[in-house]
Amino acid sequence: MSLDGYIAKPNDDLSFLKLVEKEGEDYGYTEFTKTVDTLIIGRKTYDYVLKEIGSSHYDNGQRDVYIITRTERPSVGKTIFYTGNLTELVRRLKSGSGKNIYCDGGAEIINELLRNDLIDEFTISVIPILLGEGIRLFKDGRPEQQLELLNTKSFETGLTQLLYKRKK
Amino acid sequence: MSLDGYIAKPNDDLSFLKLVEKEGEDYGYTEFTKTVDTLIIGRKTYDYVLKEIGSSHYDNGQRDVYIITRTERPSVGKTIFYTGNLTELVRRLKSGSGKNIYCDGGAEIINELLRNDLIDEFTISVIPILLGEGIRLFKDGRPEQQLELLNTKSFETGLTQLLYKRKK
Repeated sequence: MSLDGYIAKPNDDLSFLKLVEKEGEDYGYTEFTKTVDTLIIGRKTYDYVLKEIGSSHYDNGQRDVYIITRTERPSVGKTIFYTGNLTELVRRLKSGSGKNIYCDGGAEIINELLRNDLIDEFTISVIPILLGEGIRLFKDGRPEQQLELLNTKSFETGLTQLLYKRKK
Repeated sequence: MSLDGYIAKPNDDLSFLKLVEKEGEDYGYTEFTKTVDTLIIGRKTYDYVLKEIGSSHYDNGQRDVYIITRTERPSVGKTIFYTGNLTELVRRLKSGSGKNIYCDGGAEIINELLRNDLIDEFTISVIPILLGEGIRLFKDGRPEQQLELLNTKSFETGLTQLLYKRKK
C-alpha cells in the first residue's frame, strides 16, 4: 500500500507500483511462496499480474491457485476460478492439512477475511508515496484485532515491509 | 496511527495508545523536539496531552506553541491559542528564520497541511493493532506526493516509526 493506505488510485490505476520496480528485486516473494501451498487471489489482481508478469507468477504447477471471481471460467493447470463463498473456502482450507495459504488482494477479499478474523499473518509493503485518494486496503467496519510485530525490512527503493502476526 | 490508518477509534477514543506506553520510553520525542522551535498542535490533541502528561510536554518555556482552535483563549506562557488561518500561519513561519516546525495532529490539521504541500518531513508511528474503524490520519482528496524513505525504527513494544521526507 501507499503510506496513506491505498492499493490503487481511482479506476484501479496501479502505476505507482512502478516506483519500486527494480530488476532482480522481488521483495522476498519467491522465498516466501516456498512456504505456501495454496494461493487465493482476486480476479482483478490476477488479471493485472497475468498481463504484467505472466500466469507462472502464481501457478508454478505445484500449488493450488484460487482466483476469486463472479464469472465462471474453466480451470487452467492448477488455477481454479472460484465463484463460491470465500469465507467457507478459507475455513475449509485452514481446517485441512497443508502448508500456508497466501492471499494477495484485492481489498474486498482482504476485508472479508479480516471481518471473519481468518488472517494469521500480515506482510504490509509500504510504498514511499502519498497517493491522496483511491482504493483503500483497509475498509471501515472491521473488528479490532491486536497484532504482534515480527519483523520489518527496508529496501533500496524505499519500500518497507512490516510483518505482523495476529495476537489472540 | 494503527496499522489500518486510524489515529483514534470513534468518539476520539485513544485508549489503544496504552498498548505502546512504556516507562522511560518516549520514542525519541525529547531528542526530536530539540531540533524544533515551534510546535503546532490541534486543540483536541493538546487537551488529551494536558490531561495525560501535562502542559510542559509541549511548552517548555523556550519554544512557541500554537494550539489550533476555534475558541479564543488567552495565551499561557509560550502557548498561543490560534484561531486564524492555519495555512497562512505555517507559510509565514516557514518563510521566517528559525528551526524546525513540528505539527502533531489532529487529522484535520495534518490534512490541511498536506493539501497545501506544507509538510517536508514525516514521522509515522505505526502501532501494532487493527482498530477496524475510527478517525483516519489520511483523508481522501489530497494531491499525490512522492516521498523518500529516510529511516525506520522498531521498538520493543512493536511500535515502528517510518521516517520520510517529501521528494520534490
